[in-house]
Amino acid sequence: MSDYSKLKKEELLKLKEQFSEDFEKVKAKGLKLDMSRGKPNKIQLDLSNELNDILKSDSDYKCESGIDVRNYGVLDGIPECKRLFGEILGVDDSNIIIFGASSLTIMYDYIAQCMIFGAGGKPWSAQENVTFLCPAPGYDRHFGILQHFGIKMINIPMNNDGPDMDKIEELVKNSNVKGVICVPKYTNPEGITFSDEVVRRFAALKPAAEDFRVIWDNAYVVHDFNDTPDSLLNIFDVAKEYGNEDLFIEVTSTSKITFPGAGVSALAASDKNIAAIKKRMTIQIIGHDKINQLRHARYLKNLSNVKEHMKKHAEIIRPKFETVLNAFSNELDGLGIARWTTPNGGYFISLYVMAGTAQKVGALCKEAGVTLTKVGATYPYGIDPDDSNIRIAPTFPDVDELEAAVEILCLCIKLAAVEKLLETAE
Amino acid sequence: MSDYSKLKKEELLKLKEQFSEDFEKVKAKGLKLDMSRGKPNKIQLDLSNELNDILKSDSDYKCESGIDVRNYGVLDGIPECKRLFGEILGVDDSNIIIFGASSLTIMYDYIAQCMIFGAGGKPWSAQENVTFLCPAPGYDRHFGILQHFGIKMINIPMNNDGPDMDKIEELVKNSNVKGVICVPKYTNPEGITFSDEVVRRFAALKPAAEDFRVIWDNAYVVHDFNDTPDSLLNIFDVAKEYGNEDLFIEVTSTSKITFPGAGVSALAASDKNIAAIKKRMTIQIIGHDKINQLRHARYLKNLSNVKEHMKKHAEIIRPKFETVLNAFSNELDGLGIARWTTPNGGYFISLYVMAGTAQKVGALCKEAGVTLTKVGATYPYGIDPDDSNIRIAPTFPDVDELEAAVEILCLCIKLAAVEKLLETAE
Repeated sequence: MSDYSKLKKEELLKLKEQFSEDFEKVKAKGLKLDMSRGKPNKIQLDLSNELNDILKSDSDYKCESGIDVRNYGVLDGIPECKRLFGEILGVDDSNIIIFGASSLTIMYDYIAQCMIFGAGGKPWSAQENVTFLCPAPGYDRHFGILQHFGIKMINIPMNNDGPDMDKIEELVKNSNVKGVICVPKYTNPEGITFSDEVVRRFAALKPAAEDFRVIWDNAYVVHDFNDTPDSLLNIFDVAKEYGNEDLFIEVTSTSKITFPGAGVSALAASDKNIAAIKKRMTIQIIGHDKINQLRHARYLKNLSNVKEHMKKHAEIIRPKFETVLNAFSNELDGLGIARWTTPNGGYFISLYVMAGTAQKVGALCKEAGVTLTKVGATYPYGIDPDDSNIRIAPTFPDVDELEAAVEILCLCIKLAAVEKLLETAE
Repeated sequence: MSDYSKLKKEELLKLKEQFSEDFEKVKAKGLKLDMSRGKPNKIQLDLSNELNDILKSDSDYKCESGIDVRNYGVLDGIPECKRLFGEILGVDDSNIIIFGASSLTIMYDYIAQCMIFGAGGKPWSAQENVTFLCPAPGYDRHFGILQHFGIKMINIPMNNDGPDMDKIEELVKNSNVKGVICVPKYTNPEGITFSDEVVRRFAALKPAAEDFRVIWDNAYVVHDFNDTPDSLLNIFDVAKEYGNEDLFIEVTSTSKITFPGAGVSALAASDKNIAAIKKRMTIQIIGHDKINQLRHARYLKNLSNVKEHMKKHAEIIRPKFETVLNAFSNELDGLGIARWTTPNGGYFISLYVMAGTAQKVGALCKEAGVTLTKVGATYPYGIDPDDSNIRIAPTFPDVDELEAAVEILCLCIKLAAVEKLLETAE
């Protein structure tokens, strides 16, 4: 196949005619396909159904410390659940707090606390121009939280090994810059993992702000899906070398290990931050759902068992990613109108279509019955400066649906590219 | 028995000698008894164990709207769970949002939102002297939330039928007064229920503040324990008559219906408030634990079934309240040194010892191995202006333990009273 940018106007017009015809045929089928959200498929959910057999009416409801998990108490989580997450995140149990079903809520809550009470300095709500650095494309819900609280966001370009650290190091010299929010492993949507160098440069940051925090959303910490998984340095191990442990708030959850709708989430932080968070929690809650903590701890047991469990997810997820990536290769390779990432884990592929056509591709897909993640959503304020990035979430549809959806997507990418090129073709 | 205040000095000295001897004997036993917190007993927890048999690995995980509760989604709760709480609180399902395990967290979160974003006016954090009215004695954790956020608290005296409404009506004319926080049924710790007149006067409030809210913590809505239960007017029904539905944020939970450590909580509010809260929640969470919602909805079924379930709790709780009340009657009646409430439900008895002796009674009890709720905690800032109120929580200990504990408590009340009277006796 030949690079579209080298085609003459007549050739482009011919392609446009062909693609338009194909598009009308596809549209006529009235399909309804969804590649929009990073949701596990039903078969993945079924993998963890035994979680609901772990506790029965006649079970022993005592956690390891002898507390009856049915009753009040245990602010920061039962010991076996803290140990499990401590092992997953590579930190001491005492640096773990267990929360409810959603790590998003932990992050929201943490930022809310910084707004009202600050993070060692004045409340952020009492400071001007509070700013976060946002490696982008990134997770739309991260940006949603920051925007909600009126925190200014600055885009940080993503390289193949993580965010542009030169830019981050430069910007943190401004004391208005209060933090970074990011997914360090199998980033959403890039699917790449921060290199050792990037993690080290994060750990060594010298922010001007005394109340600077990095929200390290390790959502895909055990979510490898092939034989060449990525490896992420333990941020707290490295931060310790620089005395910077207090800068990092790490979160994760079992949402994509067991059930998104009923999991357990956890926060890891320095001794000092854990103490501050616990102090606030004494006012906020008596204790999160401990029965679900016990269920998860007894079912998932330990990191090694979690990894075995994740292999079952991988068997289901891998073919879906392959389906998408094969279709991209077959349909788009060599056309010079798209590039994409090839992740070893996580939930997303990041697709870059010809600059200035992503919105159009999204609109065409919608017209043809394929729902994509809202185009632009992967950037702060929903604005992709290049109008190029599209997040592909292959896990929820079945392989058949996915094949159909990607075929349509590729058609739309080509149609939009040809139309764009025709605008300036002579 | 005769009124201690009428005794002569010699008589008081003789009593003091006797009580001191008794106290030393009790102390020597080295008991460890706890009447401090409103926790269900293990036998009460066992009542709901079948909740954990409701969902098994091979269960149908679809809620009534066809959504798989294991997966992401459903921001405000599954339909059957909303209907259950709608029935319990007497509001339309659309005026219910289901949350996680703790209604305390709902209240914390609501106040946090008012601090950062306001409740229709400027953010409370940007206003001076934000003040709440606190019917007292009341729930220590309510006061804890307000104090945490730096909200000024004003004590409102409690009458037999609820808070002093004259005082509330007068104080809400000040626009700094942003709200009231209260438990309207089987109040903590009084165990009384707001009369129809009190509820009507709440519903008819004309606060000067445009951003005024009443946190209506209906924690004990179905927690009757005898044949003469209290009845509480539905606040939203009455508020509607005055166009005041937006003033009220009602919360409740299954903490003392099923498991305190793993229940479901709910918020009821006006259409306008529900819309505002949901809008914020889209940023904060994808959805609370829906499997636990389904478990609770299928287990508890409906209000009538919940009431049957609560009768089983009542059978366990009633004898404990009787134990305490009988001991108070036998030991303290006619001495003029204590009075107490006789609730028809809830979790607490409010005991008033001779003014100026409550701290002393608490200290003596502790010395003798009986833990009471921290004396003073039932008032804002932990300060009981009369040093008189003690919250008695009879549910957690067994009846035997309770008998022993109350006997010691009565002894300490008498000893402290006699010592106090001796300070001024001639």
